[in-house]
Amino acid sequence: MREVAIVGIGQTPVGEHWDTSLRMLAAEAVRAALQDAGVKTADALYVGCGFSAPFSSQLHLGALVADFAGLRGIEAYSVEAADASGGAALRTGFLAVASGAVETALVLGVEKATDTVGSARIQARNTSLDADFEAAHGATQSALAALLMRRYMHEYGLELSAFEGFSINAHANGSRNPNAMFRNLIKPGSFARAPMVADPINLFDGAPDADGAAAVVLTTVERAADMVPQPVRLTASAVATDSLTLHDRPDLLILRAAQQSAARAYAQAGIEPNAVSLFELHDEYTILAALSLEAAGFAERGQGWKLAQDGAIGLQGSIPISTFGGLKARGNPIGATGIYQAVEACLQLRGQAGDNQVSGARTALIQNLGGLGATAITHILQA
Amino acid sequence: MREVAIVGIGQTPVGEHWDTSLRMLAAEAVRAALQDAGVKTADALYVGCGFSAPFSSQLHLGALVADFAGLRGIEAYSVEAADASGGAALRTGFLAVASGAVETALVLGVEKATDTVGSARIQARNTSLDADFEAAHGATQSALAALLMRRYMHEYGLELSAFEGFSINAHANGSRNPNAMFRNLIKPGSFARAPMVADPINLFDGAPDADGAAAVVLTTVERAADMVPQPVRLTASAVATDSLTLHDRPDLLILRAAQQSAARAYAQAGIEPNAVSLFELHDEYTILAALSLEAAGFAERGQGWKLAQDGAIGLQGSIPISTFGGLKARGNPIGATGIYQAVEACLQLRGQAGDNQVSGARTALIQNLGGLGATAITHILQA
Repeated sequence: MREVAIVGIGQTPVGEHWDTSLRMLAAEAVRAALQDAGVKTADALYVGCGFSAPFSSQLHLGALVADFAGLRGIEAYSVEAADASGGAALRTGFLAVASGAVETALVLGVEKATDTVGSARIQARNTSLDADFEAAHGATQSALAALLMRRYMHEYGLELSAFEGFSINAHANGSRNPNAMFRNLIKPGSFARAPMVADPINLFDGAPDADGAAAVVLTTVERAADMVPQPVRLTASAVATDSLTLHDRPDLLILRAAQQSAARAYAQAGIEPNAVSLFELHDEYTILAALSLEAAGFAERGQGWKLAQDGAIGLQGSIPISTFGGLKARGNPIGATGIYQAVEACLQLRGQAGDNQVSGARTALIQNLGGLGATAITHILQA
Repeated sequence: MREVAIVGIGQTPVGEHWDTSLRMLAAEAVRAALQDAGVKTADALYVGCGFSAPFSSQLHLGALVADFAGLRGIEAYSVEAADASGGAALRTGFLAVASGAVETALVLGVEKATDTVGSARIQARNTSLDADFEAAHGATQSALAALLMRRYMHEYGLELSAFEGFSINAHANGSRNPNAMFRNLIKPGSFARAPMVADPINLFDGAPDADGAAAVVLTTVERAADMVPQPVRLTASAVATDSLTLHDRPDLLILRAAQQSAARAYAQAGIEPNAVSLFELHDEYTILAALSLEAAGFAERGQGWKLAQDGAIGLQGSIPISTFGGLKARGNPIGATGIYQAVEACLQLRGQAGDNQVSGARTALIQNLGGLGATAITHILQA
């Protein structure tokens, strides 16, 4: 298997881009990534997008984006795993380059969520749940996340304030990220007063759906050395799944797919969790941040929330997370999120993270979840 | 790059499965393919599906189908390239096994189209067109295919009857396929009297949207030899794209993506068109059959229609096509079609095609198109 490296990164600001279409966002990120890699084209384009059919009445993004970005003719198709679509596209690009079939691959994540509002947005987003056994009965992603969080609070005897630190940290980091959707700070105490969305999940707990696009250029480690001064090696790529429905899981408070894909990734890279300099996790809700920290081996079962109490998840902490704001503050451009994670990890490993730099970052773990952990896609990036 | 083989195949009948859900169709094909390969599970599942969001309010099919088919936990995600989604999933499985990251991969194509009817079906199908520059202005896939066909007839001075042979051949072959949606024959002359759909495309010209699922199991050629008596080698896998919009193509009557992906596939397999025993092409409309034959090197420009006049495309002809009925008579379970093509090619190469056997079949070319050739995915299978 050929070793794979990231040689180019690009991103658009995350937000409500009502004046920019899906294809324009996509092309902007593609062009930025190609420019960063110092190349004019690539052999293939893999597009991660979750919801373009219900949001934009548009599928077939591979050919569409290749054409609009000036790359007509190249291999191109889309990859989908709900919220983990970006991660799945990165996996596909990894396989293509690792196999030898493709020399240089573009991997794009893109989503245009905010043109769709109200019940239409909820209906669209619900396509990532089990249509027959969850969505049809009125469940939503936030409602199901609320069940998870309530169970966690019940089982470990916690109050809402136990989760506050995740959102405070995300907004602190997001406040210094020019591409973040939310750059305001959350003051201690104000988390507890935020309006409820789905009890116990409140407005300061869940991440906002957003528009955005991010892209990376992949090639072999061998070629990368001749192309750019600071290639980032992609030393692990692992996908695992679980039941979509929460009610089919033997233990609600273990994200089994997250656990399994992290374990496979550690084995591929030949490292232990203590070698990880930063962890871009899928903090769509604070409960997912806590459970993801446990699943990836940074805390024992029921202890993940404690890492948000004592600064451990901060930029100077033992396991920095959401270093550019995470889904919570950078925003969650759903199918693009997995590629934003990769782009941000590269900035950290290149030492280009500015005020958000994790000092001495050498190894980044990134993990993209689909649904409430039904799909978990983990990659390890190393300087 | 490791060599890849198909060691298991499975398919459901194609038709209107109003009593069978998307996940049930999927699981049926997955189980059949695993059984055919003599294995109980696989390391990964790649799902090709075009339109499950608008048709079934369901995305996230990777994890969903893995779970429902009894494979909870394995790597799984979806791949989409509109009508070519099945081909794109096969490409992904090929990359996964070729790379060494995955030992045994399931590739599934599935679609549940017929629960959605009338204008909702058209709106759903239109997501494969350019939403801003085609669908928004009232174009449909059939209307655009009609423009292509009219141009072809005009440029080469042809009448409608020039295309009749494609549908007659497809229905003749479909009549002997127990999994085909249409098993009636089309009599010479009745093609000309069929009701118009989008002039000049009539009811006997276009393929029916359908429900169905098909699956294959991939592994390395090396392992395949120990697993099954008749592994089929996947000796080429190539994807190319073109503009979605017809109006952006410099020459309407060349399917450039089909041409390019076929050329790349021939180069990979090291063969010329004259080595091909049969060609499962994307005959969603007869005009696509004619243009695909030209693009893949079986006829000169403007001459593809002639192959339907003299028996060349029949089972005993020089280039048999649609040997189990093609999209036209087997039916077009949209995102599953690319995998039906692979399953049918395997039956031919194993000598298990029954009354539809192409005698001495050694090499099969299969080509799956997305939209009107905006995506073209070509694979070569060899005994």
